[in-house]
Amino acid sequence: MIRLALIGIGMGSRAHLTLEAIEAIARADLILIPEKGEEKADLAALRRAICDEFAIHPRARLAPFAMPRRDEAEPDYRHRVEDWHARIAAIWAETIRRELGEKGHVALLVWGDPSLYDSTLRIAQSLPFAVETKVVPGITALQALAAAHAIPLNTIGGAVTITTGRNLRDKGWPEDAETLAVLLDGTLAFETLLPGAYTIWWGAFLGLPHEILIAGPLAEVAPSIRAARAAARDRHGWIMDTYLLRRAAP
Amino acid sequence: MIRLALIGIGMGSRAHLTLEAIEAIARADLILIPEKGEEKADLAALRRAICDEFAIHPRARLAPFAMPRRDEAEPDYRHRVEDWHARIAAIWAETIRRELGEKGHVALLVWGDPSLYDSTLRIAQSLPFAVETKVVPGITALQALAAAHAIPLNTIGGAVTITTGRNLRDKGWPEDAETLAVLLDGTLAFETLLPGAYTIWWGAFLGLPHEILIAGPLAEVAPSIRAARAAARDRHGWIMDTYLLRRAAP
Repeated sequence: MIRLALIGIGMGSRAHLTLEAIEAIARADLILIPEKGEEKADLAALRRAICDEFAIHPRARLAPFAMPRRDEAEPDYRHRVEDWHARIAAIWAETIRRELGEKGHVALLVWGDPSLYDSTLRIAQSLPFAVETKVVPGITALQALAAAHAIPLNTIGGAVTITTGRNLRDKGWPEDAETLAVLLDGTLAFETLLPGAYTIWWGAFLGLPHEILIAGPLAEVAPSIRAARAAARDRHGWIMDTYLLRRAAP
Repeated sequence: MIRLALIGIGMGSRAHLTLEAIEAIARADLILIPEKGEEKADLAALRRAICDEFAIHPRARLAPFAMPRRDEAEPDYRHRVEDWHARIAAIWAETIRRELGEKGHVALLVWGDPSLYDSTLRIAQSLPFAVETKVVPGITALQALAAAHAIPLNTIGGAVTITTGRNLRDKGWPEDAETLAVLLDGTLAFETLLPGAYTIWWGAFLGLPHEILIAGPLAEVAPSIRAARAAARDRHGWIMDTYLLRRAAP
């Protein structure tokens, strides 16, 4: 039987690793390493450093593979994603069969947590053979954001809606939402709310030495976030950022 | 200067501790241990075991204190909570001054993550003297739930609303919500949705050896959850549970 561990590793800081994640990495015979064009050298290096330190199994092998790209010609978003997952699953299957045959521990390191805006669980379900899947939860960008700003995500007894930049841009502020946590936003969707009365807590490279934090009334700080984001992206070649929005008290 | 570390320790499993949490516990001179009537022996023992293993500082002291109760005669929920926080902050302040004076590392171990439905950050802000607060994120019940069921919290590109049992009971299903994650529900608020078409993923004692998981169409499994919850609560004297709900596909 192939055992597959999907391991949340937090935001790239070694400090975010849980004991369970470290044990799962140490147990791996094979670690599949997706390589993405947009993941620049320092992000890849963080992943390598974690494997070098914790993948202590004498037979442990790292198997880097080039992530297929989504077919942007496919107009339907869900079909595009499902087709992409199937092509990644085919690469995993081929690599596992070649490296391990029918038995062994395979690991995948997932930024953040495998349950939140991550494809790994869905790809695992597309594998052409049965595997025993274990999920190891990890620190998400939202938690790292709240920790860095030392704020609670929720108001007292209040709800929090987690959504994507795409949803905020396409559908606007959700009617019932009090607090909105936004992930996967490459296009500054919060600017669509201007000049509305909101407070924003923004962060990039959370948990890393070059972490950047900006917070304040949205209309006041939005230009600083745009500028800081562009400058940091230029400097590092990539950026991971997230933010929390709350309607300002009237 | 007093340095205060609010340390997320996950759901009680040692495996959920991050390296950052372990380092923060090891650095503590004083660990404040709230003791609640409803926290039964095994929950207190989990906390003690973590301190015994990781609080290695030679001067580290554990300072247990009885948690004040909320004044249930105060009709306004926010006032009730704010008054309660102020009374807890007064106990912390007195304990810190007595044990450390004006300098040292104080730690508090928080179930889950300090940013989600936890009072510790708000209490810290009520302290009568300035402290340097550091938050260490931890694995939340939601992440442990999703990991145990091996499911993503979100649908592809979909939003997730995190709320409380009280909100679900008082306000019903939020208009715009697709997926609802419910915390702090002592009264089975999901039963107010019956006989609606929803899917539920429920879990108790997540990450612990006596973890219980139930999932399926809400109308089918709701009675089993009620029965399992009551039986487990009788057996252990306490229960921590949470669940994810999604509107069933039409």
